[in-house]
Amino acid sequence: MSGYITEEIPAEELTRQIERAREIGDSVRSLVAATVVTDVDDDDLAEARRHIDAATEILERRRIDASFGLRFNSDGRLRNWGNAVEGIRNPIAPPVEFHAEPDHVWSELHLGPQYEGPPGLVHGGVIALILDQVLGNAAVNAGAPGMTGTLTIRYRKGTPLGSLRVEGRLDRTEGHKSFASGTISTADGLCAEAEGIFIMPRWARGLDASRQMGVGDA
Amino acid sequence: MSGYITEEIPAEELTRQIERAREIGDSVRSLVAATVVTDVDDDDLAEARRHIDAATEILERRRIDASFGLRFNSDGRLRNWGNAVEGIRNPIAPPVEFHAEPDHVWSELHLGPQYEGPPGLVHGGVIALILDQVLGNAAVNAGAPGMTGTLTIRYRKGTPLGSLRVEGRLDRTEGHKSFASGTISTADGLCAEAEGIFIMPRWARGLDASRQMGVGDA
Repeated sequence: MSGYITEEIPAEELTRQIERAREIGDSVRSLVAATVVTDVDDDDLAEARRHIDAATEILERRRIDASFGLRFNSDGRLRNWGNAVEGIRNPIAPPVEFHAEPDHVWSELHLGPQYEGPPGLVHGGVIALILDQVLGNAAVNAGAPGMTGTLTIRYRKGTPLGSLRVEGRLDRTEGHKSFASGTISTADGLCAEAEGIFIMPRWARGLDASRQMGVGDA
Repeated sequence: MSGYITEEIPAEELTRQIERAREIGDSVRSLVAATVVTDVDDDDLAEARRHIDAATEILERRRIDASFGLRFNSDGRLRNWGNAVEGIRNPIAPPVEFHAEPDHVWSELHLGPQYEGPPGLVHGGVIALILDQVLGNAAVNAGAPGMTGTLTIRYRKGTPLGSLRVEGRLDRTEGHKSFASGTISTADGLCAEAEGIFIMPRWARGLDASRQMGVGDA
């Protein structure tokens, strides 16, 4: 499969690159939020656009492939910077940073105005987006990764923009299928629940475990 | 409900504002994609960041509320610029522009590197995000809007980044529940299917139809 790339970046250099990636990702995230809620006049909009287009031109001076892909470094670290949920250099991603426990994964995150659906609430599809990644990571964490086969979300109440907690766990496996579930909640309680079936693709079944892990980046 | 705002913007002025919103939204979209796939050195990254932060500072000179909300104009047009799928001024949104037919809604869209999950493929959660909006809009289009209650996605094969077509239709209603379904496909065939149940919230049941429409912005 193309897009699965092996690299040999010295550990110290990779740490430095991660810092730079996080910085530019965070800068663009702030710009994205400001773009949604700005109320400046046309002159200011035009001035801002000149800066934005100048930045794009600089970043396009040299680029990688059509998309970022998954990059496995020789020191064991995985770069998934283009991932729409976790990618530190993807301004669309909050990014969600997961913590692995023996039997589940979890994260606390903050969603700003760019994730809105109904007024003041997180878009129902954004909830599905994040829960898909949570469940996929729970399967990876339990050593049973796969690509999403089926995903079901049950919305219990509107999820306000702001601070949220997500959790996911692997419930069981059947052959190459992993069954995972998870929740998204605020301090006021449960907002949505998810169940998913993740399937190890045929081409990945012969790979060693460290390479299979990338399969979970659904 | 707060965030549902009625405005009286003269038609010509609103048309002009829409043009400006689309321009700045598109500029930031290009920047987002460039950020994901750039391969420039640290000096260029720093130079780009100076422009990005300058643009953010300009846009933050004056801002609206914590989020954009839904703004109904007296000429019948709805501004949902903050919507994570459709919002023209939300750089996270592709944005998806829907076409309404008598019995279904559809759109053709292009997804760039910022929507990646597995290498070269659309993130499974992004597929759920877009299908949630498609199904919600199908319910609105059929005069039976609601907030997402349950959403189920079945992934048939990996969806490549690039050009896609989405479709959604209302299958039936039961009281305040609307049952909708939809698909996402490429020229090579079906990639994923969705079913959803959309529920008209209690507070919206007394509103006239034009205001209920905003309920579909799931």
